[in-house]
Amino acid sequence: MDSKQMPGRLLRAPENFIDPAGVRRVVAEAKEGRRDFIRSAFAAAAAVASAGAARAAAPADGDPAILNLPEHTKGLGQPVVTDGYGQPSKYERNVQRRQSPGLTQTSQASVSFAPLQSLFGIVTPSGLHFERHHQGWWDIDPSKHRLMLNGLVKTPKVFTMDEIMRLPAVSRFHFIECGANTGMEWGNVAVPTCQYSHGMLSCSEFTGVPLITLLELAGADLKKGRFMLAEGADGSSMTRTIPASLVESGEVLVAYGQNGEMLRPENGYPLRLVVPGVQGVSWVKYLRRIEVGDQPWGAKDEAIHYMDLMPDGLHRQYTSIQECKSVVTTPSGGQVLLDKGYYSITGLAWSGRGRVRRVDVSVDGGRNWRTARLQEPVMSKCLTRFSTDWVWDGKPAIIQSRAIDETGYVQPARRQLREVRGTRSIYHNNAIQSWLVQESGEVGNVQVA
Amino acid sequence: MDSKQMPGRLLRAPENFIDPAGVRRVVAEAKEGRRDFIRSAFAAAAAVASAGAARAAAPADGDPAILNLPEHTKGLGQPVVTDGYGQPSKYERNVQRRQSPGLTQTSQASVSFAPLQSLFGIVTPSGLHFERHHQGWWDIDPSKHRLMLNGLVKTPKVFTMDEIMRLPAVSRFHFIECGANTGMEWGNVAVPTCQYSHGMLSCSEFTGVPLITLLELAGADLKKGRFMLAEGADGSSMTRTIPASLVESGEVLVAYGQNGEMLRPENGYPLRLVVPGVQGVSWVKYLRRIEVGDQPWGAKDEAIHYMDLMPDGLHRQYTSIQECKSVVTTPSGGQVLLDKGYYSITGLAWSGRGRVRRVDVSVDGGRNWRTARLQEPVMSKCLTRFSTDWVWDGKPAIIQSRAIDETGYVQPARRQLREVRGTRSIYHNNAIQSWLVQESGEVGNVQVA
Repeated sequence: MDSKQMPGRLLRAPENFIDPAGVRRVVAEAKEGRRDFIRSAFAAAAAVASAGAARAAAPADGDPAILNLPEHTKGLGQPVVTDGYGQPSKYERNVQRRQSPGLTQTSQASVSFAPLQSLFGIVTPSGLHFERHHQGWWDIDPSKHRLMLNGLVKTPKVFTMDEIMRLPAVSRFHFIECGANTGMEWGNVAVPTCQYSHGMLSCSEFTGVPLITLLELAGADLKKGRFMLAEGADGSSMTRTIPASLVESGEVLVAYGQNGEMLRPENGYPLRLVVPGVQGVSWVKYLRRIEVGDQPWGAKDEAIHYMDLMPDGLHRQYTSIQECKSVVTTPSGGQVLLDKGYYSITGLAWSGRGRVRRVDVSVDGGRNWRTARLQEPVMSKCLTRFSTDWVWDGKPAIIQSRAIDETGYVQPARRQLREVRGTRSIYHNNAIQSWLVQESGEVGNVQVA
Repeated sequence: MDSKQMPGRLLRAPENFIDPAGVRRVVAEAKEGRRDFIRSAFAAAAAVASAGAARAAAPADGDPAILNLPEHTKGLGQPVVTDGYGQPSKYERNVQRRQSPGLTQTSQASVSFAPLQSLFGIVTPSGLHFERHHQGWWDIDPSKHRLMLNGLVKTPKVFTMDEIMRLPAVSRFHFIECGANTGMEWGNVAVPTCQYSHGMLSCSEFTGVPLITLLELAGADLKKGRFMLAEGADGSSMTRTIPASLVESGEVLVAYGQNGEMLRPENGYPLRLVVPGVQGVSWVKYLRRIEVGDQPWGAKDEAIHYMDLMPDGLHRQYTSIQECKSVVTTPSGGQVLLDKGYYSITGLAWSGRGRVRRVDVSVDGGRNWRTARLQEPVMSKCLTRFSTDWVWDGKPAIIQSRAIDETGYVQPARRQLREVRGTRSIYHNNAIQSWLVQESGEVGNVQVA
């Protein structure tokens, strides 16, 4: 993993604020009247300059003409964007999804991880949404795409995109997490950053038609037809079994919208299944067919992959729900605390069973816990942002978070999870994550019992 | 306005679904066993083919080898995106912000409108967020950017971005609307689409530090200092007065995050003020200074622009709150209904005073109203998506929406607003919008009393 792949936003030292008397003097000198905006602006720039000069660590940019106003205050900026889609700042180029070299044999059957350590709030920008492909991604012409409903239905149907998009739609915020997220930790591989340990996780506002609406149009026999097969149109022909109980709740969506616009090609454009709370592989991309049947299908990705090898040598199958889990994203592996003092510990919590009820944070490896603030709105099967205050005393610290969902389920310690599940799984690792802060301020992934 | 600027997503005819017996036959022929995924895939493609053939209007694409599987089902797709920021589908190129030619003299002091007619849910993708610049946009180096707090404070302060980003942050979903949104309607100019009539409106999850936190660090005298001056760093040196009452509620944020990532350059990167419920001009971009004072500043954009010329010839000043408003985005101007039948009427409602309580929809120009469904979560000073069902009988119809907020305020009819405000305003037009559906199915902007 080269340095290019490290997270971009390091924690900086709590530099002292500029000497207040200095600011007052500069302002007083420059400010002759309230309407003298040009002079006031100059005063602000001058204050900035003396602030910069007062710092032990001088700014990297050594412009000697520091009293000059910056170009963006003097000049005419760029015109409105009228052709083309808006882009992030050039200074944010390091905030990208990253592939883990060597994790898979081909980059068409691979993963790119979302940069959780650089994200705020709960919405994942679609340009940074994690990817997991089984045979690469496609940009499918929506005018040619079709969705078929067949099986135990009175009236098999084929829908065009236009037909689907004319039906009553709903929009809901949900997380999506790959079942293999945090999978490397089963093998005692402490990957260096939360991008690589937890970055197969994203959260969006999805828009689509409840699958139950389409099934009702087709006259599905839901007494007998308790299992739906969802099938994708890409080369992997991904097929997954969706239990009717989830569909009947109205939660499962045939979705075309993500964060206000159409799905992105790498996330299933023009149509994907949204199965809230369930691992990402069931959110079938490029969705082309739903078949209603009377038993689980035992498809390839249900019979070979996405199963949990238990200590007794048997496999747990159809363990699709992503149990309650959380991770501290700041401070997290790869970041550096440049000095002692105040830090806001923040991270994400989620549960495939409903709402997050509480998140506790420890800075001493799980001996003591305190309850974190949860950012409203706390939504069901959606990421929840938590935060708490911390003053670092410069000594080694182990930072952890522990989420509890509305069912009362408590995110397990690593040891607790292994007692039940053994050590040979790949999927469904929802253990408490530990970040070790060293005296140097460097933060790394550490595996605590 | 050339055709390139029309909205991309037209409403299509309710084409009949494929003959059910035909689908069953094709499926039965192809399906020899459940595990025969390749053949099942072929069956789905064949069903699609016969569905296409059954349509009166043949697909634009005349591929004769229609029984062949599409390339995306046979081939290896594209690899995960590991370098670069994700982009929308090439088929969505028409979904863009648009400038209104001639609206302003230079494109640095101009507007680009968000394509509301093509958006879902409530989140506006940052790449489509409307823009309003007073002197163009800049991509400012965050390591050099500073925020100064001065005026009636005990300890004037200058903050670096790192210092701001280390403080406890909150994330909140809010709309932002330019005070001049829907301004053309004052002059009886019925602009053709909701992108141009209402597109200076967007909604994001913003992340930042409550301004009150920074003021407390500086020891602001809020007994005397009832007005904050917010000043931007770009060439327009935008200055706006923010009343202390809004700041004390904790709602006003010094924000760096938008939809999970850093603000976009055209929206104020690296720092902007977020003033929920208040017109966009007060959300000062490239924020560099907050001064605490004892009276409103009467800045240029408070004394010349962003005021309302009343019937008696006087101006209303400091009318910053965006009152309750709504607009139907589908069907809306520029779209075409290709046949009679079912349509889902949907749109957006918002209020600068709090939550939307109810939205009514009329299809007969305001004679009869029915209550629309509101999509949860309904958040304060945030867009709310509404929808209702409609079966079009093919006759002319006038579609309207009317929002009511939690204060009981009812969005006024055009006539009601003009009775109070006259006809010479530019700003703060929150009247009910009317869309005329002609017998041809064409939808246009019509000004109804």
